[in-house]
Amino acid sequence: MDLPSIALQRAVEQLSRLPGVGKRSALRYAMHLLKMNGPEVQDFADAIVRLKTDVHHCHLCHNLSDSETCPICSSPKRQRSIVCVVENVQEVMAIENTQQYRGLYHVLGGVISPIDGVGIHDLTIDALFERVRTGQPDPIEEVILALPTTMEGDTTNFYINKQLAPLGVKVSVLARGIAVGDNLEYTDEITLGRSIVNRVPFAQ
Amino acid sequence: MDLPSIALQRAVEQLSRLPGVGKRSALRYAMHLLKMNGPEVQDFADAIVRLKTDVHHCHLCHNLSDSETCPICSSPKRQRSIVCVVENVQEVMAIENTQQYRGLYHVLGGVISPIDGVGIHDLTIDALFERVRTGQPDPIEEVILALPTTMEGDTTNFYINKQLAPLGVKVSVLARGIAVGDNLEYTDEITLGRSIVNRVPFAQ
Repeated sequence: MDLPSIALQRAVEQLSRLPGVGKRSALRYAMHLLKMNGPEVQDFADAIVRLKTDVHHCHLCHNLSDSETCPICSSPKRQRSIVCVVENVQEVMAIENTQQYRGLYHVLGGVISPIDGVGIHDLTIDALFERVRTGQPDPIEEVILALPTTMEGDTTNFYINKQLAPLGVKVSVLARGIAVGDNLEYTDEITLGRSIVNRVPFAQ
Repeated sequence: MDLPSIALQRAVEQLSRLPGVGKRSALRYAMHLLKMNGPEVQDFADAIVRLKTDVHHCHLCHNLSDSETCPICSSPKRQRSIVCVVENVQEVMAIENTQQYRGLYHVLGGVISPIDGVGIHDLTIDALFERVRTGQPDPIEEVILALPTTMEGDTTNFYINKQLAPLGVKVSVLARGIAVGDNLEYTDEITLGRSIVNRVPFAQ
């Protein structure tokens, strides 16, 4: 695709770096930005630059935050002895949206994946062990593993569990089973199988 | 969706202004930008700001351009007596990609659409008439209408044709018919009907 302007070409190249955005979508975005007025486009670009300058990682849980300690870690209302281990910030948001969890988090920043070149030291796993081992800033009684059910997620679960075992902390994982509202007929066998094996008492 | 950072929230709001991008995609884009390094994000934002500062509209055909006159209008190789009228810059690129057209263009910037509040004076229609009437900078012998086959496109075609009629310029439209490689069986009736009515001599 030959674009009539070098500046447009550059904008399209940059926009097509976004995940899942091809040249055609990038051009559509660029044309839309071109139709916006000057100050609007400036606001758009500023918001993107500010992502790098204003967004920090919480020094405790590694969640994104505007300050050194995220609102969850600094909240006096949270139960500080439970830590939920998640892959990314998106999972923190998803769990927060359920309003069913009042403990703290630990964001790994990924899962162990030798194929993608992601090792233990690319993640915040050591910081998690440190939190549990030292009991600083809070003694931790339970670690909930909420990683994805992929081979990489399972590997990471296994490694964390093995390292935490000697520290005497309770380690649990999220319950897997048939989604609420789902039909048994259309549930995959692995999920259905697990939900039978891990059945729970009625009216728990 | 509650985001853990105001800067992230703002970036997501701005990114979701792009066409077809919802909050979830915008968050995905923002997380991707967060993972890029500082200079990369700065380049990204600069390319967007430059869209507004560096991209101009050609004073003659209203195509996008880095300079006052676009490369097509300033090319000595183009046939300057034919003008192809298109809705947007994207159509110029599409026609250029065919390498079958050597004339000039006129980009309307839209089509007449009372429902969307787009009238004649929101478009560059008057500038087109001026080009044909004055014969400046080049006398124009033929105007090719390459607008979309929608009610709005047809209305715009009709209006332009009516205004151009007294000026003695030849007005043509793009041939509509079965796409090359398409099967008659699956062609819609309107297209098939038109292609029968507008049949052309064999081996033209």
